[in-house]
Amino acid sequence: MIVDIFATENLLFMIPVASIVALLFAAYFFKDVWSKDKGTPEMQKVSDAIETGAMAYLKRQIKTIGIVIMILAIIIALCTFAGEPFSLYLNYKVAIAFVIGASFSILSGFIGMKVSVNSNIRTSAAAKRSLGEAFKTSFRGGALSGIAVSTLSLFGLFMVVLIYNALIGDGDGLTPSMTPTLHAVVGYAFGASFAALFAQLGGGIYTKAADVGSDLVGKVEAGIPEDDPRNPAVVADLVGDNVGDCAGRGADIFESTAAEIIGAMVIGTAVVTYGGMDNNWVFLPLVLMAFGLIASLVGIAVVRMKEDDDVVKSLNKGYYVTIALNIVFLAITTYMLLGEKYWVNFFIAGIVGIGLGLAIVYLTQYYTGDHKPVKGIAQASETGAATNVIEGISVGLESTVLPVVCIVIAIVATYLLGYTAAPEVLGVKIEPMVFGFYGTAVGTIAMLASSAFILAEDTFGPITDNAGGIAEMSGQPEEVRDRTDKLDAAGNTTKALTKGYAMASAALAAFLLFAAFFEIVAEVKGVSLSDVFNVNLGDPLVFVGGLVGAALVFFFASLAIRAVSKAAGEMVEEVRRQFREDSGILAGTTEPDYAKCVDIATRGALKTMVIPALLPILVPVVFGLIFRYVVGPVVPGFEAYSAVGALIMVGTIVGILMANFLNNGGGAWDNAKKYIEEGNHGGKKSPAHAAAVVGDTVGDPFKDTAGPSIHVLVKLLSTICLVTAILYL
Amino acid sequence: MIVDIFATENLLFMIPVASIVALLFAAYFFKDVWSKDKGTPEMQKVSDAIETGAMAYLKRQIKTIGIVIMILAIIIALCTFAGEPFSLYLNYKVAIAFVIGASFSILSGFIGMKVSVNSNIRTSAAAKRSLGEAFKTSFRGGALSGIAVSTLSLFGLFMVVLIYNALIGDGDGLTPSMTPTLHAVVGYAFGASFAALFAQLGGGIYTKAADVGSDLVGKVEAGIPEDDPRNPAVVADLVGDNVGDCAGRGADIFESTAAEIIGAMVIGTAVVTYGGMDNNWVFLPLVLMAFGLIASLVGIAVVRMKEDDDVVKSLNKGYYVTIALNIVFLAITTYMLLGEKYWVNFFIAGIVGIGLGLAIVYLTQYYTGDHKPVKGIAQASETGAATNVIEGISVGLESTVLPVVCIVIAIVATYLLGYTAAPEVLGVKIEPMVFGFYGTAVGTIAMLASSAFILAEDTFGPITDNAGGIAEMSGQPEEVRDRTDKLDAAGNTTKALTKGYAMASAALAAFLLFAAFFEIVAEVKGVSLSDVFNVNLGDPLVFVGGLVGAALVFFFASLAIRAVSKAAGEMVEEVRRQFREDSGILAGTTEPDYAKCVDIATRGALKTMVIPALLPILVPVVFGLIFRYVVGPVVPGFEAYSAVGALIMVGTIVGILMANFLNNGGGAWDNAKKYIEEGNHGGKKSPAHAAAVVGDTVGDPFKDTAGPSIHVLVKLLSTICLVTAILYL
Repeated sequence: MIVDIFATENLLFMIPVASIVALLFAAYFFKDVWSKDKGTPEMQKVSDAIETGAMAYLKRQIKTIGIVIMILAIIIALCTFAGEPFSLYLNYKVAIAFVIGASFSILSGFIGMKVSVNSNIRTSAAAKRSLGEAFKTSFRGGALSGIAVSTLSLFGLFMVVLIYNALIGDGDGLTPSMTPTLHAVVGYAFGASFAALFAQLGGGIYTKAADVGSDLVGKVEAGIPEDDPRNPAVVADLVGDNVGDCAGRGADIFESTAAEIIGAMVIGTAVVTYGGMDNNWVFLPLVLMAFGLIASLVGIAVVRMKEDDDVVKSLNKGYYVTIALNIVFLAITTYMLLGEKYWVNFFIAGIVGIGLGLAIVYLTQYYTGDHKPVKGIAQASETGAATNVIEGISVGLESTVLPVVCIVIAIVATYLLGYTAAPEVLGVKIEPMVFGFYGTAVGTIAMLASSAFILAEDTFGPITDNAGGIAEMSGQPEEVRDRTDKLDAAGNTTKALTKGYAMASAALAAFLLFAAFFEIVAEVKGVSLSDVFNVNLGDPLVFVGGLVGAALVFFFASLAIRAVSKAAGEMVEEVRRQFREDSGILAGTTEPDYAKCVDIATRGALKTMVIPALLPILVPVVFGLIFRYVVGPVVPGFEAYSAVGALIMVGTIVGILMANFLNNGGGAWDNAKKYIEEGNHGGKKSPAHAAAVVGDTVGDPFKDTAGPSIHVLVKLLSTICLVTAILYL
Repeated sequence: MIVDIFATENLLFMIPVASIVALLFAAYFFKDVWSKDKGTPEMQKVSDAIETGAMAYLKRQIKTIGIVIMILAIIIALCTFAGEPFSLYLNYKVAIAFVIGASFSILSGFIGMKVSVNSNIRTSAAAKRSLGEAFKTSFRGGALSGIAVSTLSLFGLFMVVLIYNALIGDGDGLTPSMTPTLHAVVGYAFGASFAALFAQLGGGIYTKAADVGSDLVGKVEAGIPEDDPRNPAVVADLVGDNVGDCAGRGADIFESTAAEIIGAMVIGTAVVTYGGMDNNWVFLPLVLMAFGLIASLVGIAVVRMKEDDDVVKSLNKGYYVTIALNIVFLAITTYMLLGEKYWVNFFIAGIVGIGLGLAIVYLTQYYTGDHKPVKGIAQASETGAATNVIEGISVGLESTVLPVVCIVIAIVATYLLGYTAAPEVLGVKIEPMVFGFYGTAVGTIAMLASSAFILAEDTFGPITDNAGGIAEMSGQPEEVRDRTDKLDAAGNTTKALTKGYAMASAALAAFLLFAAFFEIVAEVKGVSLSDVFNVNLGDPLVFVGGLVGAALVFFFASLAIRAVSKAAGEMVEEVRRQFREDSGILAGTTEPDYAKCVDIATRGALKTMVIPALLPILVPVVFGLIFRYVVGPVVPGFEAYSAVGALIMVGTIVGILMANFLNNGGGAWDNAKKYIEEGNHGGKKSPAHAAAVVGDTVGDPFKDTAGPSIHVLVKLLSTICLVTAILYL
């Protein structure tokens, strides 16, 4: 058995060590947050309503996802009887890994939601006392989520690898190999991505349907403030923050790390097989993530905020500490696992990955913070909603450009660093391409190593958002809301950062998953990876794969945005109906029917999430089979997997741009509205503000439904093809 | 000299014949339209103001483009002294062809504008008498433009080919070859695309800045009707229709046919070189277009409308006649030029191309006509501007999917038809890939053969739009405006169709230009096309080319949309200023300062068009040179032209989707507004209408600036790389 955690030279022992330390941290934060008081009975009443709504939604969502997952698992398991080579790649072992991956992904979402609903109320209560205490409570809540999900991701994957390796063994080659184990484990990545897409999409539709619906009638038509208890959709809106931002993002980060680590390990096996390296190259991604978890813990621990401190600056301090530690750990890990001869290039590749993360964070701040683009949108609001929307779309489209430039530089640099590090025999490099891919793998993992910290930062935002809602609804004094608003504004920035970060890591990781796909092709054909890794767009039959991949992203974005529009429309009708039929609601004498709105959001999300979530599975499989069995036979030498490869790759390119466009455009609109609310261009209630509210509403499904879902879609496209590669051969 | 117009078997004589017939037709229409009366002195005053504004703008635009073209031409000409192989591909002959192509492209725009300003006033005068007469005048004006531009395109290209062939000769190979001639002639395609991008972009910015600016203050704020003479921006708006829709589209159609015929001819030379066919295969595209011109003339001639007829149906009749004739001509041409053994497959490929055109027309009608998508947007307007915009974006994104499916089917079908037609030696097909490309070439040209009819249909719309404006401004009775409105509504549909048509032909033609690019690479390297035509996205250094191509399209769209937003903002300020400073304007007692608004639109368009227009030139060249000289040398065997190929190809894929999204989204918003104005959802002045006006305004720069410009951008990307291919070798 290769995966030997008692061998010190592979550093694998770091994984349980880091996991245990992380769980101790988590336990401490859990005790700390849970020990905080839950405020007044009014606050608790609101909080209970939120928790009930969120639990009810998650339960129904899990049921829906569960059915789909079971059907898919059975299909995959049935392939066990299809005979070789088919059953080598699709079998009950893959099916079980798929179910485990999906379950853990759902569990991550559940943890995110559970922590969040319990921290919201306590943050709200703490905000009655001081800003510092509110910050501490919400950030520790976020940190608890971040640590729990990251540990689940790392330790869960490690256990799966360990157990599968024990059951399957080290292959029948001359040297022990991780390849057979990883064949089964790709199912885990697929399951994680698949469940995450549902969670992110369903949660995203829920939260924005409720948000848009409640704002359109409450804020715009009735003129009551945000989170006003008279608004029938307000509870649904608060539930949405928990199931969308917290549960959805938890599942998303879980699948990101799972898929990307597995992709990196597959590249590691290629380096072992073709480059003759030892299996430490396969374990490096896991070990790096373990160290990264520890770095994140330290980063989280150093975050401190005094009453007058800038929130984002306080968080950044922790982020920089995390990064600095990760650089040290990166040097140690690459040196110890890759050896003196190879470590320098891969260490630098890791630095490039970390640098990419920083660059993206900076660019996202530029495009969605109070800088020229956001001010331009605010300025355009002076001439009405139409120019606000036009300017916002223009900013969103533009904001894709510089991140792409950074991503291009990072891909080229990490690839060339790996490429030039390849060993030479008689002056000829041995499989330099595979080493090149390994360079991008190290870059990706180094970037991802801070993910626990990033998720902590991300979850802190929706917690404070909800805390503000609870304060507003339970009629707390103005100063309480002011404190949570200050934290919420910082949360908006960190949320945008996370999305940029996740997208950049997906872009850099894309090659890991592409290469993993072709590695399976190479294996089945018994040739080298570089012999089959050919996606020639110059072949019209491959080019059309690219067209289909691009159209898939556009279609998915359309469906995700449409789903929000539809569910929000129903919500608007319901809120209007309640206002119309009971004049006591707006007068504040009768309590509106919150449950009805919660129900509309729940049904709306569940009904509309299934088709777009199945799209990234059905399209590549159907396309691949048509090209394998109908088109392929006409043209000798044509390989359907190549056309499927083009579908994934161009889909990924378009997905990266589309997600950036949607995320940044939405973020910029949001902050342009906030900028006007600060008193610019006439401030609140001015015509410019009304125009900015339209833009902000348009941006809602962009940045919280379609954008983050496309991030998962891109990963799912790769993992589904990875699992089904054998079908196109 | 191969290009022998006196040899009957190559059918080349059809080109002068068709051109002469077309010019006779044009002369007749010219006499007919110009003989019509120009209405009342008030109408003439308005018309004169429009003509002056349009001429002033075009003159300044030509000056700006002229400078850029001259600089580029000098750079290309200077390469003559760079030594071989450089000077074989970039030299003074290419520079001259470039200048000729650009000049003809500008001339096409000029013809479109000139015909349009002269037909507007006469259509307006005719509308005082009857709908039928107004239709006849406007359609004959459109037809005059269509015929003139198509003839210029066909005959101009033919003359350039003829003269260059005479000067350059038939190559020094064993068999006479068109290759040396076509090397120089690609400059013509590049010049045509380059000038067209300026014309389409500048005109598009002009027209939408004026339109958005005049609507926002006039219709929305002051509540005066469209084209009301009290609106200071109204003349600028009417000028915009002429310089954007007429001049811009004229240049666009000119470059489309030029670039696509040349691409098809280059593929023809490849068939000759590798497949051993005769030069008739090279001439087929020209001959097909000549027959297509005649078919369009007949189609135009049969268009008749009685007073109560449906306008679109009357136009469709002519379209179907054109298509039917084109099918007959296609059979004759393929049979005579390709011979008994080969014609059937290519005839069917042509039918597929024509079928794609029909399918796109149908789908565009579905997404932008009064069907489910448009009604959905109208419905969403009930809940405000935000849901209207969200729904419109969703419709636009979705509308890309089915056209892509049709394009994929057409590419695969035409390619396989050509592929399977390749001659065999001992059971092995000879260069089937090249024959496959030739299949897509025939499909493209068959589709494009109706272009004169399509342009006639397209130009008729803006003519009636302007006629309505003239009627409104000169205070004609309501019924005059009602008649032009009826024609204008049909014009909106035909305009959307043209854009879909142009985009589909660009998609199908994409491969002609890609293959032409690689054909040059093959020649320089002295190998076969299939040896070099490899754009392997699996190579990270090639993949990043794809990322850059995709980002280029997003960036261009951003700049084009931003330009409108900026110029429209200035227009809004100016109109508001005039209303504020002179209360006599809104009272109707003083005449507003129209010239000031015309000047703002002119300066706005000229200032903002240069950078986005240079982008598709600078990005591939800079990228290619960096990858040739900096990145390439690190990796043995890496070819920079391959990365440039990925840039063009993925740029084309993303461009196709983005253009469809922008064109159809904009069209759907426009018609949703019209649908509400017909009395649905509360009709005019209802809250739903106000919401729909916002969506319509957002759609303006989508459908009339960014969308059509991206269509030209895609072509320009290919032609610039075609001309500069030698740089990346």
